[in-house]
Amino acid sequence: MINIAVVGYGYWGPNLVRNIQELGDARAISCCDMNPERLAQVKSKFPSIETTTRYEDILNNPLIDAVVISTPVSSHYELARKAFEHGKHVLLEKPATASVAEAEKLVELADQRKLTFMVDHTFIYTGAVSKMKEIIDRGDLGDLYYFDSVRINLGLIQRDVNVLWDLAPHDLAIMDHLVKEKPVSVCATGACHVGNGHENVAYLTVYFDSGLIAHFHNNWLSPVKVRTMLVGGSKKTIHYDDMEVSEKIKIYDRGVDVSTTEGIHDVLVSYRLGDMWAPRLNVTEALRVMVGEFVGCVQTGRRPITDGISGLNVVKILEASEKSIKQRGKEIRL
Amino acid sequence: MINIAVVGYGYWGPNLVRNIQELGDARAISCCDMNPERLAQVKSKFPSIETTTRYEDILNNPLIDAVVISTPVSSHYELARKAFEHGKHVLLEKPATASVAEAEKLVELADQRKLTFMVDHTFIYTGAVSKMKEIIDRGDLGDLYYFDSVRINLGLIQRDVNVLWDLAPHDLAIMDHLVKEKPVSVCATGACHVGNGHENVAYLTVYFDSGLIAHFHNNWLSPVKVRTMLVGGSKKTIHYDDMEVSEKIKIYDRGVDVSTTEGIHDVLVSYRLGDMWAPRLNVTEALRVMVGEFVGCVQTGRRPITDGISGLNVVKILEASEKSIKQRGKEIRL
Amino acid sequence: MINIAVVGYGYWGPNLVRNIQELGDARAISCCDMNPERLAQVKSKFPSIETTTRYEDILNNPLIDAVVISTPVSSHYELARKAFEHGKHVLLEKPATASVAEAEKLVELADQRKLTFMVDHTFIYTGAVSKMKEIIDRGDLGDLYYFDSVRINLGLIQRDVNVLWDLAPHDLAIMDHLVKEKPVSVCATGACHVGNGHENVAYLTVYFDSGLIAHFHNNWLSPVKVRTMLVGGSKKTIHYDDMEVSEKIKIYDRGVDVSTTEGIHDVLVSYRLGDMWAPRLNVTEALRVMVGEFVGCVQTGRRPITDGISGLNVVKILEASEKSIKQRGKEIRL
Amino acid sequence: MINIAVVGYGYWGPNLVRNIQELGDARAISCCDMNPERLAQVKSKFPSIETTTRYEDILNNPLIDAVVISTPVSSHYELARKAFEHGKHVLLEKPATASVAEAEKLVELADQRKLTFMVDHTFIYTGAVSKMKEIIDRGDLGDLYYFDSVRINLGLIQRDVNVLWDLAPHDLAIMDHLVKEKPVSVCATGACHVGNGHENVAYLTVYFDSGLIAHFHNNWLSPVKVRTMLVGGSKKTIHYDDMEVSEKIKIYDRGVDVSTTEGIHDVLVSYRLGDMWAPRLNVTEALRVMVGEFVGCVQTGRRPITDGISGLNVVKILEASEKSIKQRGKEIRL
Repeated sequence: MINIAVVGYGYWGPNLVRNIQELGDARAISCCDMNPERLAQVKSKFPSIETTTRYEDILNNPLIDAVVISTPVSSHYELARKAFEHGKHVLLEKPATASVAEAEKLVELADQRKLTFMVDHTFIYTGAVSKMKEIIDRGDLGDLYYFDSVRINLGLIQRDVNVLWDLAPHDLAIMDHLVKEKPVSVCATGACHVGNGHENVAYLTVYFDSGLIAHFHNNWLSPVKVRTMLVGGSKKTIHYDDMEVSEKIKIYDRGVDVSTTEGIHDVLVSYRLGDMWAPRLNVTEALRVMVGEFVGCVQTGRRPITDGISGLNVVKILEASEKSIKQRGKEIRL
Repeated sequence: MINIAVVGYGYWGPNLVRNIQELGDARAISCCDMNPERLAQVKSKFPSIETTTRYEDILNNPLIDAVVISTPVSSHYELARKAFEHGKHVLLEKPATASVAEAEKLVELADQRKLTFMVDHTFIYTGAVSKMKEIIDRGDLGDLYYFDSVRINLGLIQRDVNVLWDLAPHDLAIMDHLVKEKPVSVCATGACHVGNGHENVAYLTVYFDSGLIAHFHNNWLSPVKVRTMLVGGSKKTIHYDDMEVSEKIKIYDRGVDVSTTEGIHDVLVSYRLGDMWAPRLNVTEALRVMVGEFVGCVQTGRRPITDGISGLNVVKILEASEKSIKQRGKEIRL
Repeated sequence: MINIAVVGYGYWGPNLVRNIQELGDARAISCCDMNPERLAQVKSKFPSIETTTRYEDILNNPLIDAVVISTPVSSHYELARKAFEHGKHVLLEKPATASVAEAEKLVELADQRKLTFMVDHTFIYTGAVSKMKEIIDRGDLGDLYYFDSVRINLGLIQRDVNVLWDLAPHDLAIMDHLVKEKPVSVCATGACHVGNGHENVAYLTVYFDSGLIAHFHNNWLSPVKVRTMLVGGSKKTIHYDDMEVSEKIKIYDRGVDVSTTEGIHDVLVSYRLGDMWAPRLNVTEALRVMVGEFVGCVQTGRRPITDGISGLNVVKILEASEKSIKQRGKEIRL
Repeated sequence: MINIAVVGYGYWGPNLVRNIQELGDARAISCCDMNPERLAQVKSKFPSIETTTRYEDILNNPLIDAVVISTPVSSHYELARKAFEHGKHVLLEKPATASVAEAEKLVELADQRKLTFMVDHTFIYTGAVSKMKEIIDRGDLGDLYYFDSVRINLGLIQRDVNVLWDLAPHDLAIMDHLVKEKPVSVCATGACHVGNGHENVAYLTVYFDSGLIAHFHNNWLSPVKVRTMLVGGSKKTIHYDDMEVSEKIKIYDRGVDVSTTEGIHDVLVSYRLGDMWAPRLNVTEALRVMVGEFVGCVQTGRRPITDGISGLNVVKILEASEKSIKQRGKEIRL
């Protein structure tokens, strides 16, 4: 039985606790938050969980094997560092850290101590993304050409980060999971209209050496909620629409065929029309699968699917995109 | 009665001729194409139209008041220049020219000769765009924040231009029509995977000094056809979906409210939920309205809605975007 | 403070208890179910609630003001009758009873004892149906012409009733709520293919004297989930799509205009195209509003929106539809 | 070369002539209409076609092999009868005739004279319906359970027939084409609100002995245009949405599994979730395929896919539905 402490009981905390409690081989035994009102909520819903406003109580409790950190991103590094130093495994909410340097240090620390370091990139554990991974790994798409992601909706404008730091981690983590090739540079543009001096509309291009191009569109002001991803390859294309109820993933066998004729300068390009196919998806709640993965890794020592490296990869792109956006789209090497 | 010659009878030519013939106060009397087969098609459908493979026959025919040029863009400048020099009014297919310099010369020439110079930005004459114009001019949207356009589908990959030159003119013309402020610079990214060495996937950001940001996504490889535009303002947002059959335009009274409290650093941002409204749209064929506008301008001497300047504005952005895309997103001033 | 006992803790029970507990002026103090496992679930989630397998414990507990009955429909009558006889107010799950005779007796009993008798027609308490009611009561639709409802999906085929008894109560209750006129007769058709000898596909027409026609399509086998309602009037039409995330209600100002010219036999019918409007809807959870209504009625003695009569009206149509379906669409008077 | 006369040049006539002219092995040489204005339109578009207001000119012209009759349904019988008596092949617009008796006589007459008798059930020649036919004939759906069709939109209310006679022939013809089993009886309900004393909203159930049930919903007043068909079987279900641009046909491998356990009264019913598949469809214009089929049958003497019998089958159901609707849903044997 793995004993877990949950640190930070805000928006996401209750979902984490509920899912941990419903696993058979782990349980939340402690919850830490600076706000006593929130701790009272924990107590009323989960009387068996001890609560505290002092993080040291968690660190110094030898019963606790692992901490799940669900606090604002600016505090992630310090909280995770201390946890590793006290020999605790760590699950961090996304984005992993506020900088590449922080993420690198945490990865190093976890490796030294041989502790599990996982980042909660929840979408990786959905039936939709699992299916995309399976299809892409099988080579069905052929060479990858483009990866286009749109995640826009009326969002709670955050005080201290721009819309990319808030929304893009989901999609960058999916790209990191699906695409084996490493990105080489980014260009980002955006604008700020209300609030916090940070961009509320942003566009991010990620370049790869192979010719694959990825693009992310995030917007906190859109009254229309869109969550789509188009992953196009030389053979097939996946369309992922997270707003669809039952057919989130569609695979199109429809595209462009190219043939070069010897001695002729022109290439011959022609349409290829074809079928569309929407596979059945696993409908287990992603958060459940995610906490199960964390507990399984703590128990066995194997590396999580969304380990510290994947968290680091996402932060690298976010940090570079922020530099690019401030220089009006200047290409920033990764 | 305005006598018109149609130059170039390819994909778009038959539609132009049909619509001209159905106007009461103009008629196509001549058609020029280098391909005799196409001229035979003209003859069989419109026996009254004279055909020729020699452009001089058009230029030297004193009965002809105006020419409609529907040829590849590389030939636009020479054909239009000669037409103006022979005192003919000109309607050019989009994009107006292959360079800013060419477009500027044509604008100047038309002004000197006091001839009508119009560019066929057909979408401006749709019921959907007219309605958007009416709503924006009335100030319903408040300050404009963002203009996001997606036009992607399995497209015929063109031999000599990239996807922006092919698809973006539609959307850039709409932006030019709807937005009074002039853009200041662009950043573009893209990639080429098949065929012609030109980008088949491209992303274009257009900056404005007010903070308004515009973005265009064009893709020739997408098996899914998307044609949407989101124009967001401080008060309302328009969603235009050209694939919708009957409700192409939706206005959302839903967004984010911002209030700054004196002496407090934070701004207060809150959601505003509200109604959605889809106005009735005029369903007259846009091409009919467009040729009617041309003939009306020739008759009265008034300036067309999509005059040479609007054509020039579109070409300015295309030319800058091509420079930017070759320098991996470098900002290019307009 | 109103003390409530929940009788039956199956699929719907946990939702009822949760919502009751979150009201300020009522609480669930007791739960009765014949299955001890389910009672254990109650205890673990709500330690303060007493549990029992004996209904008499509820009836004889003088602290209990009201019972909420969420058991199979065949037991509704006996359970509710006894509750009324013991002076308890009653909230019954839909459909109210298994026969018209039963529902009539319960209505009479509640009236005699001056007790609140409410039926949980949950949809009546959604923002969507409230908005429809407001629009129709204001006369915006003009004369009502048709009411067409489709509720189909892959459903749990029930052992003892057909698909109309399972799914149509939702829609019949909405019709009863929205339409002032009383229906006069029904025709129903259907077929059974799997399972229980009861229809899994059914179609029900409800006639009104004014010319209004209502129709209900229910199907347990459809892999596509559809929940739409079209309420057409002489002036406007409402389209309600419960599968839409944010614009469930659309009002179309689009229809047919009719004018009769004196002395001419023909009527002149012409299209009227117009705007569409999707009003903002209240998003409070319907179940919360429903239990609030029940508690409010118990406290004040006022009649619930979905009182016993509305439950009876729904059962009248269900009973008649079953007769009709067995006689292959024969019209049955109500 | 088959010489064709087109009789009736109203809404559909121009499309028929255009498609005939583009076939290689047939041509329209004559057109008959009582309205001289329409004949003038024919002349201006197709100068080579002779026009006449006298049907006898067609009948007595020995050059004419076949007549295509596109007039109001009340005139079909007389026009077709005379054509057969003059040895001409006949293609009739849908519905074939105004009564079963008429259709039967025409079928008999054509058989006696060994002439081609075809009815223009255009939808049968679409890529969507061809694909459905292929899938059903292959047995993919298993036993057919239900056939549900909705065709509603703001329609031109016709003077002399109800909405079923106007819209249902499309869907009844599709059913006749797809379903081998013969229907046994019908129940229909409906209501009339505007105009002509004929139902503008109607619902039609068609019974089959196997347990298959078919249902048709037609409505001329709906501001929302819906054209869907759901064909459910024991193994798979087809969803046909004619308003979809590219994926009109979807096949769902999702349903209900039933197993009966010996000695137990209950049947075990469980969900089966599965993939969805949208096959590529032929996009040739249906009208072109249809006129090609007619000409091919005239040339070779083979029986058309939509022969007189299919026209008769549709009229049988329409005639029965009209009797049923007047008797408020009474079952009428076919």
